[in-house]
Amino acid sequence: MSEIIIKDIEGGVCAPKGFKAAGTACGIKGKTDKKDLALIVSDVMCSAAAVYTTNKVKGAPLEVTKRNISDGKAIAIICNSGNANTCAPNGIEIAEKTCQTAADSIGADKEDIVVCSTGVIGQELYIDPFERGIPALMQQLSYQGSASAAEAIMTTDTVPKETAVEFVIGGKVCKIGGIAKGSGMINPNMATMLSFITSDVSISPEMLDKALKEDVKTSYNQICVDGDTSTNDMTVVLANGLAGNEKIVKDGDDFEAFKAALSRVTVYLAKRLARDGEGATKLIECRVSGAADDIQARIISKSVIASDLLKAAMFGADANWGRVLCAIGYAPGEFSTENIDVIMESDKGSIQVCSGSRHKEYSEEKASQILAEEEITIIVDMHQGSGSAVAWGCDLTYDYVKINGDYRS
Amino acid sequence: MSEIIIKDIEGGVCAPKGFKAAGTACGIKGKTDKKDLALIVSDVMCSAAAVYTTNKVKGAPLEVTKRNISDGKAIAIICNSGNANTCAPNGIEIAEKTCQTAADSIGADKEDIVVCSTGVIGQELYIDPFERGIPALMQQLSYQGSASAAEAIMTTDTVPKETAVEFVIGGKVCKIGGIAKGSGMINPNMATMLSFITSDVSISPEMLDKALKEDVKTSYNQICVDGDTSTNDMTVVLANGLAGNEKIVKDGDDFEAFKAALSRVTVYLAKRLARDGEGATKLIECRVSGAADDIQARIISKSVIASDLLKAAMFGADANWGRVLCAIGYAPGEFSTENIDVIMESDKGSIQVCSGSRHKEYSEEKASQILAEEEITIIVDMHQGSGSAVAWGCDLTYDYVKINGDYRS
Repeated sequence: MSEIIIKDIEGGVCAPKGFKAAGTACGIKGKTDKKDLALIVSDVMCSAAAVYTTNKVKGAPLEVTKRNISDGKAIAIICNSGNANTCAPNGIEIAEKTCQTAADSIGADKEDIVVCSTGVIGQELYIDPFERGIPALMQQLSYQGSASAAEAIMTTDTVPKETAVEFVIGGKVCKIGGIAKGSGMINPNMATMLSFITSDVSISPEMLDKALKEDVKTSYNQICVDGDTSTNDMTVVLANGLAGNEKIVKDGDDFEAFKAALSRVTVYLAKRLARDGEGATKLIECRVSGAADDIQARIISKSVIASDLLKAAMFGADANWGRVLCAIGYAPGEFSTENIDVIMESDKGSIQVCSGSRHKEYSEEKASQILAEEEITIIVDMHQGSGSAVAWGCDLTYDYVKINGDYRS
Repeated sequence: MSEIIIKDIEGGVCAPKGFKAAGTACGIKGKTDKKDLALIVSDVMCSAAAVYTTNKVKGAPLEVTKRNISDGKAIAIICNSGNANTCAPNGIEIAEKTCQTAADSIGADKEDIVVCSTGVIGQELYIDPFERGIPALMQQLSYQGSASAAEAIMTTDTVPKETAVEFVIGGKVCKIGGIAKGSGMINPNMATMLSFITSDVSISPEMLDKALKEDVKTSYNQICVDGDTSTNDMTVVLANGLAGNEKIVKDGDDFEAFKAALSRVTVYLAKRLARDGEGATKLIECRVSGAADDIQARIISKSVIASDLLKAAMFGADANWGRVLCAIGYAPGEFSTENIDVIMESDKGSIQVCSGSRHKEYSEEKASQILAEEEITIIVDMHQGSGSAVAWGCDLTYDYVKINGDYRS
């Protein structure tokens, strides 16, 4: 494969050609000016692919979206925050009406609309806010609207999350952009909370689906805030083909370039989701090498960043590596725990705290300095193979408890 | 099976005939008068059985104990707190020396000693404190020493945990007593943190092992504080036969009576472990009925009490039943989530918050009153079979974060 040059650019989901977006406050979050409704529209029909939560309790919008993109096509995404439309009366009916309202405004078929909801579970959602909000969104829709849409999908997120990249396929400049929201109830499995990715690459629905399914294994499925797999997790990618590249319909260099660029977008957003986990003050990255294979490495790295005890220790800047070993030890699967090295690292330096599964003398003072930083990396070498993986999480803080002790009021 | 009458009595592990115990401070916890070494000794040889953590990283004492009771016999338990002797240099050697020191003092073989450790992982443990502490324990050993031993095995526990019961087998009065310690890193799987059970029942090692393995499925394995399965979990039961009953060597009424009494002890201790979880202010009990079978019910009930989000909501006295549905939905296994009822209950009353997986109108005020209590029961009906189970956990609080952000200092 030839070298792929990927450049970070501005613009989020509107960076790729032909995508407009907007966000507005339509009243789902109550009488507030907090945005709660986002719309992303492509100028032309897109190849579409999505991955969904593995939770058996699923939001009604997931069912409707699944049906709508079963033909591999979509033209727009409508998403509300403040209400998950899950375990709610008439959920399917409301999700379908939302699609219809959006489709009528855009001049599209309702079967070409992706619909998503995020927020409180079990409360009834009404169509009125959508009927007010969608016309407002149509007026605001612009090729610079990504930030507004990114803001409108937030719940307890403290910052909007967007990114975009540029790369070249067959001489054509291609772009991929994305927005995401997360915060709590985050332990994605085959999807994340909500992430919308756009691209102007020309690619078949089948290859788009393949790229996304492979991608989430090392991006969204490798993050964890609290181990709670949400009912509404969904990642959707729309690719409208306006970059003018030769359509990607099979494996090869072009597909690899697309996947590499997609990974740059999703890993960036995944890390931002972890860093902005509810109450979090730190991003915790765990890099595992020397595992039997990549799958085992993924499981081990995720077990480490998911441990409440390790998360609390990171909040306290305590190099309590025994909790790393403990979390490795209860990760599913059969593997040796006899010869594990652990290094803790940040911008302030690097320190080995465990060698061959045993304590290694180190300066607690230096360790505290390293762990006082906002981005911590825990490096684990299992010494038994060539499998490697990375996972991202956050610390467990007083504010996580505070936020979730009283989320609804 | 005839009716079994089980009476709660005083005395903990010393309630059964022929068991002495003591606890002392030998310096493992540093220069403090906090007790850190416990000894339990039977007057005569016992049938012995144990279950251990499923964590692949195991404390050295587990390995030594496993070997020592492989013949189904033991006479004493020596246990230190303050240091887990896990991932520590010379761990096996120290555990063996500990057995030898105890055996020499008691006048027993070192292969008849159960050795346990609990505390920080990865720090070297030395034999000196044991050499000082065991002679002191021998002087204090008494038939009233259970409370002292229960105190000596505590780490971040706020209260010692002990209980005992009396029942009759074949006209003979039999007793079972137990002590336990828990607090954090609690998500037992085939064992709990540390629990020592004594009995004067006459029972073969094989039947004792069978009783214990069946028992933990519905007692210790059904509690969770933080999802972190410890490296040192162990439950040991010693039965010395001094009650004089006809020896239990097969299934039947006597075995059922023993199991029922054992369950009374272990479920009591399991609940106390959950209630005293690190930082906890409440005991959360989840009762699941209507599952396909008991195993599915156990998985579902444990998934509910293990959810960080639900635990935080309970701390905040917030009847956020969507989090109950979410935690049910990500429990492993295939089952319907379409018709679930949820009731929340305490001494202040009972309120149904979810009917048929949908919101049920209720008074938030009444719900808050109910959830303000220290013991909360979440009742789930899955409406699809006759499987039922109970699991116990605690709320997630600021203090959990505080304790674990700085456990070692």
